[in-house]
Amino acid sequence: MAGVSRVDLNCDMGESFGVYTLGNDADMLKIVTSANVACGFHAGDPLVIDRTVRLALEAGVAVGAHPSFLDQWGFGRRPILGEDPADIEKMLVYQIGAVQALAAAAGHQVTHVKAHGSLGNMAAVDFDLALACARAVRAVDRDLIFVVMPGMETERAAERMGLRAAREIFADRTYDDNGNLTSRKKPGAVLHDPEEAADRIVRMLEEEAIPTVSGARIPARIDTICVHGDNPQAVGMARTIRGRLEALGVAIEPFSRTLA
Amino acid sequence: MAGVSRVDLNCDMGESFGVYTLGNDADMLKIVTSANVACGFHAGDPLVIDRTVRLALEAGVAVGAHPSFLDQWGFGRRPILGEDPADIEKMLVYQIGAVQALAAAAGHQVTHVKAHGSLGNMAAVDFDLALACARAVRAVDRDLIFVVMPGMETERAAERMGLRAAREIFADRTYDDNGNLTSRKKPGAVLHDPEEAADRIVRMLEEEAIPTVSGARIPARIDTICVHGDNPQAVGMARTIRGRLEALGVAIEPFSRTLA
Amino acid sequence: MAGVSRVDLNCDMGESFGVYTLGNDADMLKIVTSANVACGFHAGDPLVIDRTVRLALEAGVAVGAHPSFLDQWGFGRRPILGEDPADIEKMLVYQIGAVQALAAAAGHQVTHVKAHGSLGNMAAVDFDLALACARAVRAVDRDLIFVVMPGMETERAAERMGLRAAREIFADRTYDDNGNLTSRKKPGAVLHDPEEAADRIVRMLEEEAIPTVSGARIPARIDTICVHGDNPQAVGMARTIRGRLEALGVAIEPFSRTLA
Amino acid sequence: MAGVSRVDLNCDMGESFGVYTLGNDADMLKIVTSANVACGFHAGDPLVIDRTVRLALEAGVAVGAHPSFLDQWGFGRRPILGEDPADIEKMLVYQIGAVQALAAAAGHQVTHVKAHGSLGNMAAVDFDLALACARAVRAVDRDLIFVVMPGMETERAAERMGLRAAREIFADRTYDDNGNLTSRKKPGAVLHDPEEAADRIVRMLEEEAIPTVSGARIPARIDTICVHGDNPQAVGMARTIRGRLEALGVAIEPFSRTLA
Repeated sequence: MAGVSRVDLNCDMGESFGVYTLGNDADMLKIVTSANVACGFHAGDPLVIDRTVRLALEAGVAVGAHPSFLDQWGFGRRPILGEDPADIEKMLVYQIGAVQALAAAAGHQVTHVKAHGSLGNMAAVDFDLALACARAVRAVDRDLIFVVMPGMETERAAERMGLRAAREIFADRTYDDNGNLTSRKKPGAVLHDPEEAADRIVRMLEEEAIPTVSGARIPARIDTICVHGDNPQAVGMARTIRGRLEALGVAIEPFSRTLA
Repeated sequence: MAGVSRVDLNCDMGESFGVYTLGNDADMLKIVTSANVACGFHAGDPLVIDRTVRLALEAGVAVGAHPSFLDQWGFGRRPILGEDPADIEKMLVYQIGAVQALAAAAGHQVTHVKAHGSLGNMAAVDFDLALACARAVRAVDRDLIFVVMPGMETERAAERMGLRAAREIFADRTYDDNGNLTSRKKPGAVLHDPEEAADRIVRMLEEEAIPTVSGARIPARIDTICVHGDNPQAVGMARTIRGRLEALGVAIEPFSRTLA
Repeated sequence: MAGVSRVDLNCDMGESFGVYTLGNDADMLKIVTSANVACGFHAGDPLVIDRTVRLALEAGVAVGAHPSFLDQWGFGRRPILGEDPADIEKMLVYQIGAVQALAAAAGHQVTHVKAHGSLGNMAAVDFDLALACARAVRAVDRDLIFVVMPGMETERAAERMGLRAAREIFADRTYDDNGNLTSRKKPGAVLHDPEEAADRIVRMLEEEAIPTVSGARIPARIDTICVHGDNPQAVGMARTIRGRLEALGVAIEPFSRTLA
Repeated sequence: MAGVSRVDLNCDMGESFGVYTLGNDADMLKIVTSANVACGFHAGDPLVIDRTVRLALEAGVAVGAHPSFLDQWGFGRRPILGEDPADIEKMLVYQIGAVQALAAAAGHQVTHVKAHGSLGNMAAVDFDLALACARAVRAVDRDLIFVVMPGMETERAAERMGLRAAREIFADRTYDDNGNLTSRKKPGAVLHDPEEAADRIVRMLEEEAIPTVSGARIPARIDTICVHGDNPQAVGMARTIRGRLEALGVAIEPFSRTLA
């Protein structure tokens, strides 16, 4: 295949809490190469984090911290305005440090950080917020990789802070002409068909570009594919995509091993 | 003075939350040599932790993590039964890691861990719980010092896990014949008079022993004095004790500098 | 059948929270006659409560409030000591009032109150705590029915406060010689076989007595059977029990309709 | 005095939580005629609510519910986007019901509802959100008074739902030309001088109009003055305003007694 010859598959995980179970972490860990672990602010708790990093370690999957606004009720999906970026920085340091300690205690290691939900969406278009996230990553460990959207403010913030960045595309979402995710509220924003999603991914890797809803193509470096979906078909879609990429000879490896 | 020639003064801090303010951290930081910083489970939040470790750094005060049961409403003071010690271990790793990351980001360093409230009280008399705490400390960093009650299960757990222990006595509390704190519900359990508290402390350091309510004396190594009180006179009492000790030529130094 | 000729079936419900789903409320509502709705302190949230009372109304099932200690992380199952009964009373009034308002807004009506988890277990053997619960019920509405364990402190408290009581037995649990539930930690404490559970229930209704693990029989008035189980077979067990009782001619009706 | 001859003074209260104390409720209750009691979502807890309604009852002060977004950490001041108005309605019914039950248990009575912080600010300019709040009020009790900003969407929503409305002005805030509060982030948005605030209030009552920053005057019916301030001088300012109004012969009475 022309274009990208190796790529990472990542998935959000560890989103259970107390008696509540969410997601199919055990199945996903057989498919992906990087896991983004919820840190207790939108989901997860110390026991879930511990369990998730141990499962990832067994499965040979890299782990990252997946910090969020403090918003358990809204699962970190509600846009919360008016937060001082300096405060967001502290909130992320707290979360990354907590997951890092649990990972280390389990014999594993945090390799990356990816902002969750609304925080991630807002940081993609707000440089100050993106910078606050990048500062937090750097404050904890400047070797951590910051997962960003290609062409967006998070990528610029990673660069500004001298962090390695993993450019991420989404398997089950469409893009607007700014290179941002189409709002979930718009029809067609979320893909449900595994084959269609796999087709799109293959094309994006071949072209090294993001297709937008208007038919444009935004050139983009691509390091990782988010196969997490909020839809129940997530495992099947992830498996389909991995199968297609392997058949095309694309190496599936954690970006923490391949990024310079 | 015969007996102990140098000692640490410690205080619980960083117990504000969001818009709520608690304690006199700024004043206490002029008096004590070690600060135990709440980790967000009974009190504190990432902003408060950040602020507290920065103030401590400026004041030249050592910081430790002060983890708790997850119980904000009860301020970590409610005895919560039935927790699996293995779970408590994870909960402490999370909290210690979070504070450690914020301290490091601020240019400071966590030197010790002290269990808060009911968790501390219960661990003092429950070896499995004490061991869970000690395991958490060791899992995060085996150079961390575990603050323990002399003669109690926490001291044994520190020893078992090969951790350095800082033996702590309380300035404003009386002791029962097991060497445990007298229940707050009993009359006379809490001292309010600074001079009386200072007298007791001086005697304990001279005799290297803990006086019990029945008049017995339990020999004890003493590394640190907790001047935190839940009473409003805390600052005055702390100042009085520090003054008396200095007048007697006792060196006031953080245990993190003096413990072998 | 000799003995009890009509009885209520109750189940704990509305224990989902935010994005998290728990239980099979829709299925259970086809089987039971009374639903105990979580109030947001151990589980549930305003949206879940609203949805649950509306489903119950459609299904013709009576609803009650199912208040708890404030302990979402522990799902209200952790024994929390040291709470002042007067405080517990306020916490229950808050919870009952909240559910009552949502039920009324949906056109339904709260008919009863049942304490959840550790609060219920502790109140069964602690008269002051039981009285605090009963006081809360009465303070909100003296026509509310208090669900109690026959022969235990909650029954005495209902009587003392002049409340109607619904005596409840458990379909999937065994009893000790005090008439209390055997600790879940003991082998055999929880029944998993629907037929065995149905057999036990039939015998209890016939004999109007509770069989204990030592083989004794404690005479008991029985108004309702809790078919809630923390085991996944809950729906099947509930269906089996209902089928057996109907086959024996026992009328299945909400206690709110039948209690004097 | 020309203009308004009687008015209510209201204040937000009951914003303490657990061990944390906030505000000067006891002092404020000597000055105001209506108290808006936090419901546990941004501040307050069942014990604080109980204590506050009892103090208000003793002081002869009317109580209302002061519901909020679920946001304890942000004290309900963070704008949270994307909430479905239908969900907000349930969240308010829950909160109002909880406070109502505690008030009734204490022998007092909830007379009104005022949305807190960001929810109030957002509802003032978003009719759907305002309508959700008004629906919640009506669902709990159609005799409850809805506290609104004159000329804003909350006033329209009260009218639409057939609720009595209490038009509120703020003693320590300036207004923009839409009749909305000037953002706190703008200089001069918050008044700190009691005399200046009292002057403004007197003028607003005389003219029955709201002065805007550009010098315009928006005619407004005025039923109540919010003397709550987030500034420490709140009690002094409230006392000054009450004194001035009494000197001018304006009757200070709860709007719950005077509104038709």
